[in-house]
Amino acid sequence: MDQPSPTPLFDQVDNPVDLKKIPRDQLPALCAEMRKVILDTVSVTGGHLGSGMGVVELTVALHYAFDFKNDRLVWDVGHQCYPHKLLTERKERFHTLRQKGGLSGFSNKWESEYDAYLMGHAGTAASAALGISMGDRMLGNHRYSVAVVGDAAMGCGVAFEALNHAGSLEKERLLVILNDNRWSIAKTVGALSRHLNKLRSGSFYNRAKEAVHGLIQAIPVVGKDLDQKLGDTVDMLKNMVVPGHIFEELGFRYFGPIDGHNVQEVLAALENIKKLDGVVLLHVLTEKGKGVPGSEDRYDRAHAAKPQPKKKPEKVPVEPCVLQPVVPLTKPGRSWTEWFGEGMHHLAETDPRVLAITAAMPDGTGLMEFRDKFPERFVDAGIAEQHAVAMASGMATAGMRPVCAIYSTFLQRGYDQVFQEVILQKLPVVFAMDRGGLVGEDGMTHNGLYDIAFLRCLPGIVLMSPKDGPELHEMMQFAISLDAPSGIRYARGNAPNQGDLLGWHGRRQPLELGKMEILREGADGAVLAYGHMVQTALEAAALLDKKGVHIEVVNARFCKPLDDQGVLALCDRHDRVVTLEDHTQVGGFGSAVLECVAAHGPVRAQVQIMGVPDELLEHMSRNQVLEHCGLTASHVAARFLAEKQAPAAR
Amino acid sequence: MDQPSPTPLFDQVDNPVDLKKIPRDQLPALCAEMRKVILDTVSVTGGHLGSGMGVVELTVALHYAFDFKNDRLVWDVGHQCYPHKLLTERKERFHTLRQKGGLSGFSNKWESEYDAYLMGHAGTAASAALGISMGDRMLGNHRYSVAVVGDAAMGCGVAFEALNHAGSLEKERLLVILNDNRWSIAKTVGALSRHLNKLRSGSFYNRAKEAVHGLIQAIPVVGKDLDQKLGDTVDMLKNMVVPGHIFEELGFRYFGPIDGHNVQEVLAALENIKKLDGVVLLHVLTEKGKGVPGSEDRYDRAHAAKPQPKKKPEKVPVEPCVLQPVVPLTKPGRSWTEWFGEGMHHLAETDPRVLAITAAMPDGTGLMEFRDKFPERFVDAGIAEQHAVAMASGMATAGMRPVCAIYSTFLQRGYDQVFQEVILQKLPVVFAMDRGGLVGEDGMTHNGLYDIAFLRCLPGIVLMSPKDGPELHEMMQFAISLDAPSGIRYARGNAPNQGDLLGWHGRRQPLELGKMEILREGADGAVLAYGHMVQTALEAAALLDKKGVHIEVVNARFCKPLDDQGVLALCDRHDRVVTLEDHTQVGGFGSAVLECVAAHGPVRAQVQIMGVPDELLEHMSRNQVLEHCGLTASHVAARFLAEKQAPAAR
Repeated sequence: MDQPSPTPLFDQVDNPVDLKKIPRDQLPALCAEMRKVILDTVSVTGGHLGSGMGVVELTVALHYAFDFKNDRLVWDVGHQCYPHKLLTERKERFHTLRQKGGLSGFSNKWESEYDAYLMGHAGTAASAALGISMGDRMLGNHRYSVAVVGDAAMGCGVAFEALNHAGSLEKERLLVILNDNRWSIAKTVGALSRHLNKLRSGSFYNRAKEAVHGLIQAIPVVGKDLDQKLGDTVDMLKNMVVPGHIFEELGFRYFGPIDGHNVQEVLAALENIKKLDGVVLLHVLTEKGKGVPGSEDRYDRAHAAKPQPKKKPEKVPVEPCVLQPVVPLTKPGRSWTEWFGEGMHHLAETDPRVLAITAAMPDGTGLMEFRDKFPERFVDAGIAEQHAVAMASGMATAGMRPVCAIYSTFLQRGYDQVFQEVILQKLPVVFAMDRGGLVGEDGMTHNGLYDIAFLRCLPGIVLMSPKDGPELHEMMQFAISLDAPSGIRYARGNAPNQGDLLGWHGRRQPLELGKMEILREGADGAVLAYGHMVQTALEAAALLDKKGVHIEVVNARFCKPLDDQGVLALCDRHDRVVTLEDHTQVGGFGSAVLECVAAHGPVRAQVQIMGVPDELLEHMSRNQVLEHCGLTASHVAARFLAEKQAPAAR
Repeated sequence: MDQPSPTPLFDQVDNPVDLKKIPRDQLPALCAEMRKVILDTVSVTGGHLGSGMGVVELTVALHYAFDFKNDRLVWDVGHQCYPHKLLTERKERFHTLRQKGGLSGFSNKWESEYDAYLMGHAGTAASAALGISMGDRMLGNHRYSVAVVGDAAMGCGVAFEALNHAGSLEKERLLVILNDNRWSIAKTVGALSRHLNKLRSGSFYNRAKEAVHGLIQAIPVVGKDLDQKLGDTVDMLKNMVVPGHIFEELGFRYFGPIDGHNVQEVLAALENIKKLDGVVLLHVLTEKGKGVPGSEDRYDRAHAAKPQPKKKPEKVPVEPCVLQPVVPLTKPGRSWTEWFGEGMHHLAETDPRVLAITAAMPDGTGLMEFRDKFPERFVDAGIAEQHAVAMASGMATAGMRPVCAIYSTFLQRGYDQVFQEVILQKLPVVFAMDRGGLVGEDGMTHNGLYDIAFLRCLPGIVLMSPKDGPELHEMMQFAISLDAPSGIRYARGNAPNQGDLLGWHGRRQPLELGKMEILREGADGAVLAYGHMVQTALEAAALLDKKGVHIEVVNARFCKPLDDQGVLALCDRHDRVVTLEDHTQVGGFGSAVLECVAAHGPVRAQVQIMGVPDELLEHMSRNQVLEHCGLTASHVAARFLAEKQAPAAR
């Protein structure tokens, strides 16, 4: 006999048309089923769990009230969109989330006609939805434009810019839903969050009411009597006296706060709002990670789930390799992030000028322990990279040595401040760029592939990247000692420890500004590698040794200033020098080497760049994407074997 | 007999110590004298007049109340700082404003110990001042930190981020002065400006008071009587009932608005605020361009003054040149900006999808006429480049063809949105980057020297730059026809018209994606020039012709996609190919050529890059800085002459 389905309602729903056939009174049951499906799936696939679990009812209500084949829905921070995917013809593929060839972890306009927009960094949904609405109006299209924005994303400067603009427009019709769960990835910070607390508690209204009651009671003789007579009339004050709050002052009609887990209440609000013109903000209270076991008090724990170990490891399709690795690739121990956190500890203990700044990522950047141990020298600026960088420049102006720990991809948000506030003033701010390079499952929105290109062009900055964990510590120490801006990039994943670098047992050479480090010699060509790709270069050399091909391996250490003399000497020792980096090939470390050779050459060697190809990369695991990009030891080794056999064709 | 000085008070003041000796009742007279000095000087030197004229009284009061040798003063948008320079030991050099070797047009920490901070782009002063205050606290320094922020800059996302952060801190002591003149360069836009209008008129308080009076009068029987009895008691409501406005909700203590041209009133306010702890916002009303004749109704006219023609032209020290130009350099006619504005007209007339977006620069980007003619397809986003770009991506999503007209230097502010909202979605947004290259007097904060580097690394973008005005029109038409993101960069100054390019009388070749254009042939080497440097290359060729050296000149047109086949063929036709661009040499057009050769070579030619050196450039005139950078026809020609005599030494 068949088991009854654990999700009988959800089984009937493949798209919003199906959804609208479910009777309203059964929507809460449907939400419970969806929550179970998400939890069961993501606990296997891994992914960002908390945001999606918090918006199940909101998503159901949105698709019930609107028609997003025509209307436009923009999810700020795409992590929220898992329930949306389940309701829009993607439930059969939901288990492929974030896997190669599977569903993206974000909303993705190429994946579904229900996804109006692709989103990955926080705060831009209101801008995009406003732009869509304005474009629709100009083109004569009549439809709704809805943005769902988290409370932490609302603290982004760009979100404020969008509200400030939208609120001044008379003809637009825009619904911004404030999904208020009081958490970004960490706890939401800033005065706005306190303001939202007040809105939550209704204290505006209460404050006004109490003030008037108090005033009237204080009137001599008639006061007390009068106050009783007034009774509910005081409620009139709610609309008459309270001039509103931030959102109303920015020109929005504000509704809420409402319970985001009461699907009927949310649906009723949306249906009423649909009848209104103008720009509207609906304030919905939700719990991040609603329904995730153990997450009730620690929503940060619910942010992302790591995949559970599978019984059968998935077989990864691999392109034919020239050689198999000589030794198993083991990168034991700690992540680069942990090495960084530990390094901050050391620095702060020995130098009172050192402080750490994060933009809402204390955990992701490895600073949780630092925060606890040095609370006075830890600053969480919120999802506000622009402010984080400008504030750091102020701190450096005051004489501190701020370390801005911002993922490579998010530093793009503070680019102008890096230039304008830090570079132009030659201030000693250290940018610690975690997730520099390919990140894997999060895909194109989170890859850190451009930082060398966008920073290298700025005068006076020192850019470096370590080969292993101990060198990261050395570089941090070095950066703090500089009287100039600097950036250190390191990758996602584990860092080799002292002695862990395969194929290298040499003596550690002290760090010197703009000097490379030769790790092994060889007469058949050279690899000049930047950062964690040194490990890959050494593995390639080991593979080649077995074929009787012996290459030199050099750890570049610095991208700027580049070791011009070292590069020129290297290029004169060999016929072929390959540069190797986990960064786009366009304008990256390899280009710096080419520029050096063009300026000071000619040299003997042909220089070839190996890096990430100039394309938008689909999401897949980090190893898969490194393979896809040809950034493995086998690929590097193949370059030298192929060259031995025949010169490259034009 | 000596004439009496027209500025007897100001003659006594060289620094803030002198200032404090002036009796308070004579400060208005001092302000009048200072205003005259600024007006007389800037009308000769040129410069940004309006902002400075508006803050004379505020500046005097600040230096009277504080000691900015110790306290820290950060001017948002440095243009405001002219009166500050006059009061801080720089009046003797004030006439050298924005000239080579003279005073900078902005606050500059290397110029004076009274300038705590260098500033050029709007909106970051509060962040910087907060950072300084936090750093001072951490280091145990006790002093005041003051930021002066314009009302338009307050609409920048980063300013909101800073207030949101500062307002949540309990230990900081920060004074933000809102210099509210209701104008950025254009009229301030956005809901915030409407909010400020309400603050100006005091309508918060009035609304609360009226509401309560109305309520009480409506009470049956006793109402009218009671209302009279209450009398001034209702004033208590001001503080009890009105929950405040945006700044108070963000955690600031708000004072104002006060008359910014009443120096006594401003001084009294500052002295009172000095006694307070916490974060304070003082709202000061000023008139931009106060005292500039004819500016009363049109503050945009007062923003910047062009220098008056001098009787004796200043002699520019020039490095020894190899050759003198064969023909006088004339670039008649219209500026690149005007060509752009005209091109937008054409596009909008023929294509209803075309719209223009500016970030508070309708005049600077040449869009004033467009705004008048196509008001429905013109959007001023305010000083909010992030939002402007994200909104543009929304409009493109809706099917429009937005053209974002943003100076190269300001596009840095929207960099993450270019990547995240536009590139990742392959949306047809056109970035029209005016002031691409060296701008001259505004100096390092406004040079547009990095756009090729920071955009070229992004997959799928089309980047181009025209040789003359007609080609700009062709490129705009071409960009609109693309189904991809694109950027067009053009320079400050005048554009050659059809037939104006010296040394070229060839037939115009139609634009083709990723194809260069050979303008003249020659066997002794080649220059591959990008954008307006084509003119310089042609001039160099003409100089060389007279020496019997004949070079090929190629108009690159596209930086991305690069004409790989064209580049390789060119490099095989010559021993020497020089790339020429008005952009940093690091990661720019020349690097794109090197990458092409490295990927597809080897080739016959040595490739040399000519561009802006990797350094921070002092302010000077545009011609002076081109000379300084070696980007003149003489310098280009010299490369080929020197090479003929002897190969470059290593």
